[in-house]
Amino acid sequence: MPVPAPVLYPPFNILRLSHVEYRVTDLARSRAFYVDTLGLQVTYEDAGVIYLRAMEERGHHCISLVQSQRANVGVLGFKLFDAPDLDKAAAYFSARGLPVEFIERPFMGRTLRTRDLWGIPLEFYVKMDRLPVITQQYALYKGAKPLRIDHFNIFAAEVDAAVDFYTGIGFRTTEYTEDEETGRVWAAWMHRKGGVHDVAFTNGTGPRLHHTALWVANPLNVIDLLDLMATTGWVDAIERGPGRHGISNAFFLYVRDPDLNRIEIYCSDYQTVDPDLEPIRWDLKDPQRQTLWGAPAPRSWFEEGSLFDGAELADSDLKARPIIAP
Amino acid sequence: MPVPAPVLYPPFNILRLSHVEYRVTDLARSRAFYVDTLGLQVTYEDAGVIYLRAMEERGHHCISLVQSQRANVGVLGFKLFDAPDLDKAAAYFSARGLPVEFIERPFMGRTLRTRDLWGIPLEFYVKMDRLPVITQQYALYKGAKPLRIDHFNIFAAEVDAAVDFYTGIGFRTTEYTEDEETGRVWAAWMHRKGGVHDVAFTNGTGPRLHHTALWVANPLNVIDLLDLMATTGWVDAIERGPGRHGISNAFFLYVRDPDLNRIEIYCSDYQTVDPDLEPIRWDLKDPQRQTLWGAPAPRSWFEEGSLFDGAELADSDLKARPIIAP
Amino acid sequence: MPVPAPVLYPPFNILRLSHVEYRVTDLARSRAFYVDTLGLQVTYEDAGVIYLRAMEERGHHCISLVQSQRANVGVLGFKLFDAPDLDKAAAYFSARGLPVEFIERPFMGRTLRTRDLWGIPLEFYVKMDRLPVITQQYALYKGAKPLRIDHFNIFAAEVDAAVDFYTGIGFRTTEYTEDEETGRVWAAWMHRKGGVHDVAFTNGTGPRLHHTALWVANPLNVIDLLDLMATTGWVDAIERGPGRHGISNAFFLYVRDPDLNRIEIYCSDYQTVDPDLEPIRWDLKDPQRQTLWGAPAPRSWFEEGSLFDGAELADSDLKARPIIAP
Amino acid sequence: MPVPAPVLYPPFNILRLSHVEYRVTDLARSRAFYVDTLGLQVTYEDAGVIYLRAMEERGHHCISLVQSQRANVGVLGFKLFDAPDLDKAAAYFSARGLPVEFIERPFMGRTLRTRDLWGIPLEFYVKMDRLPVITQQYALYKGAKPLRIDHFNIFAAEVDAAVDFYTGIGFRTTEYTEDEETGRVWAAWMHRKGGVHDVAFTNGTGPRLHHTALWVANPLNVIDLLDLMATTGWVDAIERGPGRHGISNAFFLYVRDPDLNRIEIYCSDYQTVDPDLEPIRWDLKDPQRQTLWGAPAPRSWFEEGSLFDGAELADSDLKARPIIAP
Repeated sequence: MPVPAPVLYPPFNILRLSHVEYRVTDLARSRAFYVDTLGLQVTYEDAGVIYLRAMEERGHHCISLVQSQRANVGVLGFKLFDAPDLDKAAAYFSARGLPVEFIERPFMGRTLRTRDLWGIPLEFYVKMDRLPVITQQYALYKGAKPLRIDHFNIFAAEVDAAVDFYTGIGFRTTEYTEDEETGRVWAAWMHRKGGVHDVAFTNGTGPRLHHTALWVANPLNVIDLLDLMATTGWVDAIERGPGRHGISNAFFLYVRDPDLNRIEIYCSDYQTVDPDLEPIRWDLKDPQRQTLWGAPAPRSWFEEGSLFDGAELADSDLKARPIIAP
Repeated sequence: MPVPAPVLYPPFNILRLSHVEYRVTDLARSRAFYVDTLGLQVTYEDAGVIYLRAMEERGHHCISLVQSQRANVGVLGFKLFDAPDLDKAAAYFSARGLPVEFIERPFMGRTLRTRDLWGIPLEFYVKMDRLPVITQQYALYKGAKPLRIDHFNIFAAEVDAAVDFYTGIGFRTTEYTEDEETGRVWAAWMHRKGGVHDVAFTNGTGPRLHHTALWVANPLNVIDLLDLMATTGWVDAIERGPGRHGISNAFFLYVRDPDLNRIEIYCSDYQTVDPDLEPIRWDLKDPQRQTLWGAPAPRSWFEEGSLFDGAELADSDLKARPIIAP
Repeated sequence: MPVPAPVLYPPFNILRLSHVEYRVTDLARSRAFYVDTLGLQVTYEDAGVIYLRAMEERGHHCISLVQSQRANVGVLGFKLFDAPDLDKAAAYFSARGLPVEFIERPFMGRTLRTRDLWGIPLEFYVKMDRLPVITQQYALYKGAKPLRIDHFNIFAAEVDAAVDFYTGIGFRTTEYTEDEETGRVWAAWMHRKGGVHDVAFTNGTGPRLHHTALWVANPLNVIDLLDLMATTGWVDAIERGPGRHGISNAFFLYVRDPDLNRIEIYCSDYQTVDPDLEPIRWDLKDPQRQTLWGAPAPRSWFEEGSLFDGAELADSDLKARPIIAP
Repeated sequence: MPVPAPVLYPPFNILRLSHVEYRVTDLARSRAFYVDTLGLQVTYEDAGVIYLRAMEERGHHCISLVQSQRANVGVLGFKLFDAPDLDKAAAYFSARGLPVEFIERPFMGRTLRTRDLWGIPLEFYVKMDRLPVITQQYALYKGAKPLRIDHFNIFAAEVDAAVDFYTGIGFRTTEYTEDEETGRVWAAWMHRKGGVHDVAFTNGTGPRLHHTALWVANPLNVIDLLDLMATTGWVDAIERGPGRHGISNAFFLYVRDPDLNRIEIYCSDYQTVDPDLEPIRWDLKDPQRQTLWGAPAPRSWFEEGSLFDGAELADSDLKARPIIAP
């Protein structure tokens, strides 16, 4: 098995993915997408920034949109379990020669800013402002009725090395795709919070953010969003789906925001809290890997991604290719 | 408006589409598809034939499968309102020089066999054996949980003429696709029973049966069928979908039986009983016509169809083409 | 069988139920219920009246709300097939000594106003203003996402006689409840448009309107409405459900408007266009008759109804009682 | 706030609830309920015992049925994170004077058997036989299509004390019901695995098992089960629902097995992995607490429960009563 064994006692305790900052070129247009269409709730906004949360979240935000000259991804955020984990994390990254800094962030407590080995900007925190429960304020539900942020998927030029790095900080692999010929890992799904993934890595020019996923209750929420987007001027923003992934068993839809950031609407994966959960291996050439029902993904899905602010791109030397729609 | 006005007092009263006979080359394999996978109920079977009904139907069959040397469509069946309608229908077809014959059919009363102007074999009847109600025998529900036959879709070399002919016998057009350049009708949806269609006609080499549709309760039945087919050896039989049609607003999936007959799993169209319902016009070049969500249909969907027993093929001279998936 | 055979060639052709006029005591509060909560679309409103339609309807209205001193039901409306049916209807009612009058109604063509034998105010028309199609304007969908009006249910002091009368004008019985002891019909479901019913009659002090039903796509729309009502101040307006009826097999919810008019949110019944469809008989004492899953309806559901304007009440002499929740 | 703060570093690491052993009086009848009706998968069976798992589980069993003279609950099982946790758990219970024993259990590794302060039989383990993944073997899905065991709910004579005890071993309270008058906790929901609960405690004669819950994908699975039970002889086994709980926001149905053990079919609660998740407080007199939509639970639901093998019953001295259906 080419994926490393899980580290049951990691150097610091990451609880879950938490939030992403998108630097966007037209804040009003992005608001129309994330708020009016997807159905996220605004928790703060001014002329330069909008903070958003999903319906069952009590933390202040899962997505922030920052008006910028050029579109990219400002940072990926993760919540740590307890205050001491922050210093342990700082020590860990520092010992590996990675940049470490404690910064001020709105609506958040003490925040550690760093980068991974490939330059992806990361931030870790323990406390974020807690907001009133709105889970049962059903009059607020609209669009896809998103319930919570679910995961990040990242293009990596060295997936094997990325899996090693993230395994080292406690992420556990639930499923992975192997390139039969080279025996290398072509993609991997890794979790902290007990679902199929908090982060996934896919072979390609990286680091780039492939997508951020929002969890919804069931496939009819996905269909409602498709009907809404198709009849409110967003039909061209529908990229792939609906379908069921072989990997993760999740029901999915991929849409693109006005800066072409990719958002997955996602439901129906499975619980993974057991540390002895055996990772599921998929062959890159298995067409049901990407879509259980057989339909291949379009080329854009395999090739396009969002730049991370301040990270340099590298091509992958693993040239194996998945099945792409003609 | 290029479609003719409805004939409110037709020469005889067609109630609804009723059944289709598929002549199949491997009866056991077809049984695996229609019974074990789609979930239709067997109402009679012997070595050479299987009769099937859907869950809310009380008539004996909506599909019959007949073991044959070569696959084709034996006949399309329609139920008439009352006994006198049979003789009125015979007189009507006879007056137009079409072949007319009263035949014996198992499980059916007096049955009129004829052909339309293009040779499609048609049969009309008033009485078919009625079976016990099984709508609430939920232990029998499986596969897509099909509730009733919904419509036929037919490739026609002369769609305008087909619309005229079927309007003449009482079918009312609910939606149609126009070729902007020639002003001709490229496709039309026509009903008797109060849904979007009992029959539709699509431009192409004809007459051929494009598909037969089965009505299901909601989109999750479609998703259940996809999951089942994808994991029981039928993944290659999934041709198109799931999606929502612009035309008819229905949620759809297209699958192919072992002889490549196409079956649509269909739900969510609308009620059309008003005789003053204005037909909805679509432009052939509108990508949302075929799929509201934008994804084009594959080439096979536009080109492949089932032969009718004893009908000669003709090419269409209307060369306008829809958008086809690359 | 205690229900009369259907009249296949009725004296005039009723197409379907069409609309109901509710005279309400607080128009703004009724608007909050029907528009903001149930999700009907306003097609006209002024200080004294609001006209509403459901999402797939093209006729101008299915419900009108008229500000009044006292709440009651102004009229039940039915659409006829063709212009001559209006005069045939007038002649029919007139011959039976019932009041007949052609009146002016906003948004409607020539309109016949009459009453049935028990004084229920009825109106018949052929033409109503047709509005643009909004079925695919998904941004407008909200609340229960009602698609169309489905049926009226009426308390009748003489159900047997009501079934006879409505059979005489073409309604066909699909299901009925018999009182085992007396052999009398306790309730009956009768249709014109091809569903389980356009009108139903239930034994009780009558005539009163038991409820008007709105058709929705699937049970999740019902659940969405429950969540919304439960968290926006309407929890006390939820009377019964969700559940599945034994009769009709429909999934249902009953809610009460601010004047206590009862609205059913309804889906999943079956197609009944066959004139030889055998009525299904239920025993009044069968607990699965009212709810397939066994839960009895509350007392209010059996006893409370809306008065018809100008109709006198009579008690039923059929004292058989259904199972009522304790 | 009357519930204690969570213990972030508990004496041993409980991962999640795992399984329950029901001692049943008619194994064949219980099989008809759990396998043929609910849809659980048999992983082992012989004349005296049946082991079951749900569709996404890879551990050998979540429910075992043991043929017995008298019906009761043999044990509640919990999975620990890692091997050392077993000895830490043994030491913890031992230090509190509770019975501690390592026993042999089929299909399980080293197993610690103990009891809580009120005599509830508990077992803890780290390793259970792992079985092949069947999540995507959709041909096996039937009944309610149960995905995994979700939680236990327990009648406790001293809820405050139970909350203290289970908080001490790491369970974190997500929601609770307070008796306004006494300020005491009337019910509490406590988790380890990141959902609303692994265990809940409800005021009443205890200890008794109120119910075991199975997780399903969405409300339509619940409706499918209701339709199936209602038409296959299990209608009297339907006790309460469907509905949405105010507490937990979950969609629910309660059914009773042939020995009257209560099973909840459950979906749609929310993610609770944040250790700083504030517990939600409910007032015992709030009718939306038990059912968001307002319908009260029946008396049986509040009063009937399953005995634990070898545990002695005690009455609660907290006499506050919830709203009960008349």
